[in-house]
Amino acid sequence: MEKPTIADVAKYAGVSITTVSRVINNNYPVKEETRQKVEEAIKALNFKPNYLARSLIGKSTHTIGVIVPSITNLFFPVVVKGIEKICNQKAFSLFLCDTDGKEESERTQMQNLLEKQVDGVLVIDPRYENIENGFYEECAKKIPLVLINGYHRGIRCNFVLNDQEMGALQALEYLIKMGHRDIAFLRAKNSYSYDIKEQIYYETLKKHQIPVKEENILVIESGNGLETVELAIHAVQKRLEQSEIPTAIFACNDWMGVGVMQAAKKMGIAIPKDLSVIGYDNIVISEISEPKLTTVDQNMYSLGKASAKLLLDIIKHPTQGFQKIILDTNLIVRDSCTSPKNK
Amino acid sequence: MEKPTIADVAKYAGVSITTVSRVINNNYPVKEETRQKVEEAIKALNFKPNYLARSLIGKSTHTIGVIVPSITNLFFPVVVKGIEKICNQKAFSLFLCDTDGKEESERTQMQNLLEKQVDGVLVIDPRYENIENGFYEECAKKIPLVLINGYHRGIRCNFVLNDQEMGALQALEYLIKMGHRDIAFLRAKNSYSYDIKEQIYYETLKKHQIPVKEENILVIESGNGLETVELAIHAVQKRLEQSEIPTAIFACNDWMGVGVMQAAKKMGIAIPKDLSVIGYDNIVISEISEPKLTTVDQNMYSLGKASAKLLLDIIKHPTQGFQKIILDTNLIVRDSCTSPKNK
Repeated sequence: MEKPTIADVAKYAGVSITTVSRVINNNYPVKEETRQKVEEAIKALNFKPNYLARSLIGKSTHTIGVIVPSITNLFFPVVVKGIEKICNQKAFSLFLCDTDGKEESERTQMQNLLEKQVDGVLVIDPRYENIENGFYEECAKKIPLVLINGYHRGIRCNFVLNDQEMGALQALEYLIKMGHRDIAFLRAKNSYSYDIKEQIYYETLKKHQIPVKEENILVIESGNGLETVELAIHAVQKRLEQSEIPTAIFACNDWMGVGVMQAAKKMGIAIPKDLSVIGYDNIVISEISEPKLTTVDQNMYSLGKASAKLLLDIIKHPTQGFQKIILDTNLIVRDSCTSPKNK
Repeated sequence: MEKPTIADVAKYAGVSITTVSRVINNNYPVKEETRQKVEEAIKALNFKPNYLARSLIGKSTHTIGVIVPSITNLFFPVVVKGIEKICNQKAFSLFLCDTDGKEESERTQMQNLLEKQVDGVLVIDPRYENIENGFYEECAKKIPLVLINGYHRGIRCNFVLNDQEMGALQALEYLIKMGHRDIAFLRAKNSYSYDIKEQIYYETLKKHQIPVKEENILVIESGNGLETVELAIHAVQKRLEQSEIPTAIFACNDWMGVGVMQAAKKMGIAIPKDLSVIGYDNIVISEISEPKLTTVDQNMYSLGKASAKLLLDIIKHPTQGFQKIILDTNLIVRDSCTSPKNK
């Protein structure tokens, strides 16, 4: 039982190999009658066109590349799941590339994907440096490309973004409306997303004529993953040992939020009675913490779906101009915030 | 600036296209002098061989497929990260296929990967049905294939497994050594991995002449993900409302372990003073729970690395027989277990 070849199909249908190829790739007009003969032959012989050969003749490999800083972060797998959902519907396969958050690796992986002749590339949370140095603008000229989150001001490229300004604003307005006027801000170093939130923090406090206290800006070394919890505990404990403690803390992500809660517990400070905490991202740990953490939902799944849809659209219609799609965020009210005691 | 073709390289080097192809694919002896000329030409023209064409000529696409039940589960991304690590070193790219845990989708994704002509396939936690019905045994005849965890008794296929029997034994012996003789067992339905643990539970209790109480076997509907915590809380609360409560609970995974702790807290039962809890898997939530959950480490990262290494080895040496690699598990002692009060 040898595998049938394109030559067998041609012979069976009584047409040339070229004609069979045209029917398979649908890239050249063929008489309806001839098409039917070829399709019958394909069916009768159970012929499966060689995918790679078809890709060489046709223009599409039906593959896309997805570059992520780390697949073990709790945020990115949900984005990838959203991407997978859409790609699966359209019969596109995903190359998954994990960069360990290294800018060098991001560029190598991109090169690798170009060699694999993927139809397009999605980059989740691209490194600031590769946006700044023009790398992605150059890539966007060569291949359909969508960047997910990341720095985007003035960059000529397709983006799908969460409205992080809105998210930070929602969180802060929520605390201020409850009566908080002594709100600490907890961030990690070196991330555009924390920069945005810090800026909104200053703006929102100013708008409400709340003075910013220098000691209320807490900065830890690293923001993503388990080590963040320990770093946050340490930084927050140091702050809570001071004489006047804030009534609320806005943490730039849920890892930090969990750290705040654990620091407070260690010091006998009740949450939310003595201290309100709000997180950001709505990753799974925010739902299993005690009390459950109030946070901002980043719509990770929608983010993945929207970016995959945009990419497939660009692949189909490559001449359209660049665009930025910005998704709304939502405050998820749970149990970690309440009005301050002495408002 | 046209892209250079293989013909340009041949012309520049003064050799035939066939010779250039032989050098690129390294599939036929070429005189050292000629090889050097061709390599110089490739460098001078900055020629990049067309990947797809090279794949057609050569035998390898340098891609492998990874099939996972769900990339958003906390367990699987770490396995994928281990796989990525090894593949990246060897310049293999990963196709990621998410099946949503559906056996039908597992088969479709496998078919898709075969059409993409991947060099091999890894399946994490394959569905019992597709192992039982012979699907994977058939696949293993067609393509290098390694299954990670999953039912394997008498199945002719390559496996990389965690020693779940050892893990369950370690957890139970640890509790018994502390003096526990009233140990409940919490599992979900329909998983081979829970079946193994339940069997070890019966065997170990028998070995220590501890009678099994029917009311100590707790079964919930679904075992993977956030909903498991709620289901576990509910099942455990019902058990803890009874007159005689166990002194320890062995939960089949960390989600369930967290559920046990939350149920106990809701009922004012202190952990570990009034109730010891042990989980399984060592996913990230076991480290941020309070108290920190004692659990069994599944070596997820090593599991990924070992399976990728095995697969690449099979791709290189396809004639070797099937094998099963079984990795040891390790008990991770944290803060959720202590000796029972009335031992």
